[in-house]
Amino acid sequence: MKILILPASLRKDSLNRRLGTLIRHELEARGAKATLADFHDYAMPLYDGDLEQSSGLPDGAKKLAADLRAHDALVLVSPEYNYSIPGVLKNAIDWVSRERPTNAWKERPILLCSASPAGPGGIRGLWQLRIPLEGNFAHVHSPMFALSQAHEAFADDGSLRDEKLHKMLRDMLGGFIAYASALNG
Amino acid sequence: MKILILPASLRKDSLNRRLGTLIRHELEARGAKATLADFHDYAMPLYDGDLEQSSGLPDGAKKLAADLRAHDALVLVSPEYNYSIPGVLKNAIDWVSRERPTNAWKERPILLCSASPAGPGGIRGLWQLRIPLEGNFAHVHSPMFALSQAHEAFADDGSLRDEKLHKMLRDMLGGFIAYASALNG
Amino acid sequence: MKILILPASLRKDSLNRRLGTLIRHELEARGAKATLADFHDYAMPLYDGDLEQSSGLPDGAKKLAADLRAHDALVLVSPEYNYSIPGVLKNAIDWVSRERPTNAWKERPILLCSASPAGPGGIRGLWQLRIPLEGNFAHVHSPMFALSQAHEAFADDGSLRDEKLHKMLRDMLGGFIAYASALNG
Amino acid sequence: MKILILPASLRKDSLNRRLGTLIRHELEARGAKATLADFHDYAMPLYDGDLEQSSGLPDGAKKLAADLRAHDALVLVSPEYNYSIPGVLKNAIDWVSRERPTNAWKERPILLCSASPAGPGGIRGLWQLRIPLEGNFAHVHSPMFALSQAHEAFADDGSLRDEKLHKMLRDMLGGFIAYASALNG
Repeated sequence: MKILILPASLRKDSLNRRLGTLIRHELEARGAKATLADFHDYAMPLYDGDLEQSSGLPDGAKKLAADLRAHDALVLVSPEYNYSIPGVLKNAIDWVSRERPTNAWKERPILLCSASPAGPGGIRGLWQLRIPLEGNFAHVHSPMFALSQAHEAFADDGSLRDEKLHKMLRDMLGGFIAYASALNG
Repeated sequence: MKILILPASLRKDSLNRRLGTLIRHELEARGAKATLADFHDYAMPLYDGDLEQSSGLPDGAKKLAADLRAHDALVLVSPEYNYSIPGVLKNAIDWVSRERPTNAWKERPILLCSASPAGPGGIRGLWQLRIPLEGNFAHVHSPMFALSQAHEAFADDGSLRDEKLHKMLRDMLGGFIAYASALNG
Repeated sequence: MKILILPASLRKDSLNRRLGTLIRHELEARGAKATLADFHDYAMPLYDGDLEQSSGLPDGAKKLAADLRAHDALVLVSPEYNYSIPGVLKNAIDWVSRERPTNAWKERPILLCSASPAGPGGIRGLWQLRIPLEGNFAHVHSPMFALSQAHEAFADDGSLRDEKLHKMLRDMLGGFIAYASALNG
Repeated sequence: MKILILPASLRKDSLNRRLGTLIRHELEARGAKATLADFHDYAMPLYDGDLEQSSGLPDGAKKLAADLRAHDALVLVSPEYNYSIPGVLKNAIDWVSRERPTNAWKERPILLCSASPAGPGGIRGLWQLRIPLEGNFAHVHSPMFALSQAHEAFADDGSLRDEKLHKMLRDMLGGFIAYASALNG
């Protein structure tokens, strides 16, 4: 199984990227082939219906759609901005949703994760993030992983200091591989 | 009372812009001073924490914040993208929310409107749009106006063909002026 | 495959029940064994933590949990009350969620449907309904069926007057059977 | 100003009731007249359209509507059940919403609070709770108070051990009184 991991933040030293790195490690330990993507590689303009009509999808959106299709599943690791989806991530979802005749979100198995310095760990944003993905008929896994106090959560070797939490992540990733296998089967 | 009307679409021939024009007319008929903004005037890059740290808020976000402060209230006319907030609008909310020590959304009276060719008229997107605004302590009016079948809704003079609906909009705008006056009082 | 159909309304002459009847017919035409439940059979008091501590789950909640376990999947047909989940349905979800060590919502494949006389057809309520079910790790199918103008939608033989809509329902039920089979596999 | 405080839990030893008691104290210290209601006094059956047609609103719903009208504002203190509104509270909202020609939620200033032993403190439930209230045109204050680790949060005298948090609650209640005064003015 090939799994794309996308940390949806443009910051270089992003907590979500660090969580993505740990997820790659754990997925590979479970026999999956994991690609850790760089959100910068999918640079695209703000959505504009006139621009779409004149020029079609921008290169960054095409590349994201192609990478989604080249993998069997997606792990989206997203910060929470203002209790909801980051505009920059929603913009990418919007562009890819314009693919015709069908778009790359459809029936895509997706696991949502988040890392945040705050108490709720980004979970409110993940609930909002389900909506445009499920609205495009993606298979969004019901368990979600929200890491709170993320700035203090990682040990030097990239694992989670809290072993119980690390085990929970490991189990969730195992469950997600089984879920994606069943649906892609 | 000075009211900013912002149609949150970059399309030239936008149904939301047409609804914004009608709202301007009706607000002025009720004695308010209404400015119909052009979303292009607030052009800004996709949010990036590193960019913010090096350069602060971009000009488009500063102008939007300044225009919000120069008015007593905001009418936001937004399309629905993928059952939620357009990424381009969420991106503008995200940037303006980064103002310090306080941001321009705080205690701003806001009315949410939408125009869409589809049946639900964009109302699902408006419910999602409340969240980042209320999370920033804006006063979002509880009545919202979602115009369905918007491509067939306007008469040549810009009014709504459906008189009952036009009256509902008029009453809602009157109610919003009273609401904003009370809160700004 | 055994599928439970639960119209979540206590009204005798409920539009949601009529939609449930049509769904039973279509599921059986696709080789499934479908049970059309009566919400009255799951009568239970309003949730009260003290009552739970003294008496455990009430009989209605136990019967609902047992019926969920006795089937491979659930089609929930729910009205929308006040833009959200009916209190009476949320109360049933709350009680069943108290089962220990695990509860009957977990990993249950669920399709959400709705019938309403209004324009949006109950779709706003269904989006709210996903939350407690997905929060309990149910597999909620991403496509949902919301029948608007439901009081005029049915022909005398119980089919939908609008053939295109009827075909969409049929296709969605076929897709749901495949989804539930894959996940139960 | 007369303010009704309603802890929406039926448990005797409810954390939400304890928070309600503290809120009463703080409101009275700010010159308001506060009534701490008992949710048991509004006992009502599960909503059933047939029952409504034959018997109208049940006594508990009538009493709740009357108490809402007899006060200038409402502080609703609600637990979170399954990441959403408790069914028992939603049921009360549903019944009261059936009042005609208008219902007691309309234009009611409401502050939402929550107390929970868990980390997010019930805030996810409060966001869901806004929807049916705002859908009925209540004025729901944008700041909300969610008390996490509530089982350890109270000192023996009923104040919050965390002084900063106590001050935040005090300021929010002051802000709510001003908000309700402006809107009722």
